[in-house]
Amino acid sequence: MILPPLTAHANRLAGKEMGALIAEPGRGDALVIEAAGLVFDARRQRLDLEAWAALLGAAAKARIPDAFAAMMRGDIVNTTEERPSLHAACRNPDRLADAALAARLREARARTAAFTDATEASDVLDGHKLRRIVNIGIGGSDLGPRFIYDALKAWRREGVEARFVSNLDPADLDDALEGADAETTLVVIVSKSFTTQETLMNGQAARDWLAARLGEAGANARLCAATAAPDKAAAFGVDKARIFPFEDGVGGRYSLWSPAGIAIELAVGSRVYSRLLHGARVMDDHVMGAEPSANMAIAKGLVDAWNRAARGRPSRCVTAYSSRLERLPAYLQQLEMESLGKSVRHDGEALAASHSGALVWGGRGSDLQHSVFQWLHQGQDEAPVDFIALKDAAFMEDPRARALNANLAAQGAALTTGRAGGEGELAAHKAIAGGRVSSTILLPGLSPESLGALVALHEHKVVVEAALYGLNPFDQWGVELGKALARDLLSGDTGGFDPVALDLARRLGLDAS
Amino acid sequence: MILPPLTAHANRLAGKEMGALIAEPGRGDALVIEAAGLVFDARRQRLDLEAWAALLGAAAKARIPDAFAAMMRGDIVNTTEERPSLHAACRNPDRLADAALAARLREARARTAAFTDATEASDVLDGHKLRRIVNIGIGGSDLGPRFIYDALKAWRREGVEARFVSNLDPADLDDALEGADAETTLVVIVSKSFTTQETLMNGQAARDWLAARLGEAGANARLCAATAAPDKAAAFGVDKARIFPFEDGVGGRYSLWSPAGIAIELAVGSRVYSRLLHGARVMDDHVMGAEPSANMAIAKGLVDAWNRAARGRPSRCVTAYSSRLERLPAYLQQLEMESLGKSVRHDGEALAASHSGALVWGGRGSDLQHSVFQWLHQGQDEAPVDFIALKDAAFMEDPRARALNANLAAQGAALTTGRAGGEGELAAHKAIAGGRVSSTILLPGLSPESLGALVALHEHKVVVEAALYGLNPFDQWGVELGKALARDLLSGDTGGFDPVALDLARRLGLDAS
Repeated sequence: MILPPLTAHANRLAGKEMGALIAEPGRGDALVIEAAGLVFDARRQRLDLEAWAALLGAAAKARIPDAFAAMMRGDIVNTTEERPSLHAACRNPDRLADAALAARLREARARTAAFTDATEASDVLDGHKLRRIVNIGIGGSDLGPRFIYDALKAWRREGVEARFVSNLDPADLDDALEGADAETTLVVIVSKSFTTQETLMNGQAARDWLAARLGEAGANARLCAATAAPDKAAAFGVDKARIFPFEDGVGGRYSLWSPAGIAIELAVGSRVYSRLLHGARVMDDHVMGAEPSANMAIAKGLVDAWNRAARGRPSRCVTAYSSRLERLPAYLQQLEMESLGKSVRHDGEALAASHSGALVWGGRGSDLQHSVFQWLHQGQDEAPVDFIALKDAAFMEDPRARALNANLAAQGAALTTGRAGGEGELAAHKAIAGGRVSSTILLPGLSPESLGALVALHEHKVVVEAALYGLNPFDQWGVELGKALARDLLSGDTGGFDPVALDLARRLGLDAS
Repeated sequence: MILPPLTAHANRLAGKEMGALIAEPGRGDALVIEAAGLVFDARRQRLDLEAWAALLGAAAKARIPDAFAAMMRGDIVNTTEERPSLHAACRNPDRLADAALAARLREARARTAAFTDATEASDVLDGHKLRRIVNIGIGGSDLGPRFIYDALKAWRREGVEARFVSNLDPADLDDALEGADAETTLVVIVSKSFTTQETLMNGQAARDWLAARLGEAGANARLCAATAAPDKAAAFGVDKARIFPFEDGVGGRYSLWSPAGIAIELAVGSRVYSRLLHGARVMDDHVMGAEPSANMAIAKGLVDAWNRAARGRPSRCVTAYSSRLERLPAYLQQLEMESLGKSVRHDGEALAASHSGALVWGGRGSDLQHSVFQWLHQGQDEAPVDFIALKDAAFMEDPRARALNANLAAQGAALTTGRAGGEGELAAHKAIAGGRVSSTILLPGLSPESLGALVALHEHKVVVEAALYGLNPFDQWGVELGKALARDLLSGDTGGFDPVALDLARRLGLDAS
């Protein structure tokens, strides 16, 4: 129980005027951290230096540097599945204790790079140039690659387009194949277990589409797979030379650094993909080396845990003022909610109240200013906001980009200060209470390196929160039940269902098979 | 104070086993409502018939049928802005008391239809066929058209593509113009006030793009506007014959039925757009005619208010099991959070605790099963879920669609029933408590009519919640402050800012103008 003592600080600060907090001397030194080219600014949080010291004390009790070191060394940190957590090692194998494992990770990285380079040289698709990548995967095999592919639009290989298929709605695969020429299309099937229903059904449909146009051999030459179950991919019919295995210890939601991110690499080329990994590695090195008080991941995790567990805020809004970062909130939503959405500690005991992940939601700025900011400013609930901006001189040469970033700075200020409603009948309707909190993250422009650092920052801050709460951020036992029930319903095994499910199945026509 | 007595019912039911609630006789008759082809099913809510009767009593006290009638008649229901709320009248003018206003709305509808038909006959773009629609608008001028355009992909006019520009990031307009031929492009500027910074800056950039390719006259022939401020659009340089005015009483987030939805009409043609309006009208007629106990909008509003105000749940998750409905959650997020994100009643008094809109979030099913359902099943917080499905026999012929809908039915059951963790060390990690609530909405396939009915249902349920809470769902005073502060920052008028804003402006280069 590391955090409960902090609620006394939260209560002490609950009614404090934010202007006074912001004016506290030394605040900038404590609450603004620069690393890996990023700036994290927590000055608009409802914190003072005394509370911050208490939070750093909690971090010390939670032995967070040890948690980082154990993960980077390859210890069994995912205790319920008896596995290490190897996502950071995929980009940064040097810190692993097991040299053979490090060699396997380097080899996996080399294989996708070589395959990508081969597609650049037109060696892969029977001599055809690659034009269309169809990535078939769901959850972690989809959200990461899709987000990074969008974000790196300016870095894409010329003439190569990736599309992403996750959903069983047949419209999803139809859209991905629209306008594709089978000759120049590569279908990438990504599934850690290679048993994911959505992915296998879509993979089969994509394979049928290829085979109808190119025959079996032509289809085989346009299929590859990334999986931790290479035997199952081979049984599915993927050529062994085109199966890119990754380790069991790489969780789906953390997997874009592994062969599960191959669609990114194919789209931007192996050199740009390496830059993405490098950016993450620079953040890893900061996180492993910096003192807790100057450690960006610890600071971010402490702020988010403060708002969630000590201040009782149930959600956090993430808004990036960049069109290219449109899918960042959905990516972080999975990363945080699947990792921290638990009710029990490592040891199986119940977690203390609100000692688990908050709801993460959001969207693009300034779009959200025209949709949900009414609720953020004048609604009854406080949702802490993360503002993410590009501080890029070239970008800022366009007056639209200047206006965009002025909006970002203005919204943070408006949430903090609010305004009086003035005179007259409408005063109460116009008044904005203010006192609502936000953090700001500045990226030095949009680049593979800055993106890598941004994602790694959030991966590590999840580890920080998990350590503070006492839970395992690497398992996800809660997703199995629904899968099993869907299988039962589909196969007509309806004995375990309540009357509402049976009625719904009837209405949907699931009983008429 | 209509709802507080209901918390006694909420407390009484808090620990109840859901299976017993679901087995209560008569539950299906009370909690399943069919209208306009849709089915709303609230049987998986933590309610019994006694609580439901109490909720219907609250609805009676809130005089909800009167609220509907006042809105449809054109009364000044938006009291703080002294305006009627005319979105339903746009599709359904017959109920208006003011015949002249009804005639204006019919005329507005006829004008966009005639213009759309003219583009089909190639009369509009100097005789060129329309290929690309570029919709420039933000918030309500973007989210509705974008959502419906995606959803009606199968109904689009051949060879016509719409793209949507909302954000000031120059990448947004670049993407919308990518591959466009200026000759065959129509730029649609949508802004109720015609002062929206994002929209005017992007509109100017789009106009410059056209003029650079076609000269001033050619640019003018490819520009149109939908606005409640036609004089400002004319001053911007839009030809008067191509300005489509709409009424002040149409709120942005409710505006897709007005000329603000012109991009939808241009993309699918006037006949299909009319079918969308017709579907909404069928729901209007149901909502105006049905008894409260059999009224789908009242039932939906009561369920959502029950979870928010009586049960204290801060958010609701919306998940549609259809790729085409991907943007529905973002659309509903604005509709509900901007409408209900208030802290004061109509009369300016503070709202009772949690008597305002919940956070609305979500995404596609089954994608969310692989990202946030871990949190929904095993996290510490309960978020009520709305499951939305297509009960379409043709769709269900594809085994993937069957599997998709089986997943939907299974997830509702899994949330309700949970499962024991079994034996062994991992029992606590595997256990799912269950008892978590959901509603299900079935659409009779994806069609203009079913979409219209779905959106109208949610518009009306917002009116229901607003009446129960006692707030005005048609204003949005909270969004002005940020706009004003952004203007100040951009113009260098920094006197009112705190040191954090000034430092951020410096870091972003906003001070170097």
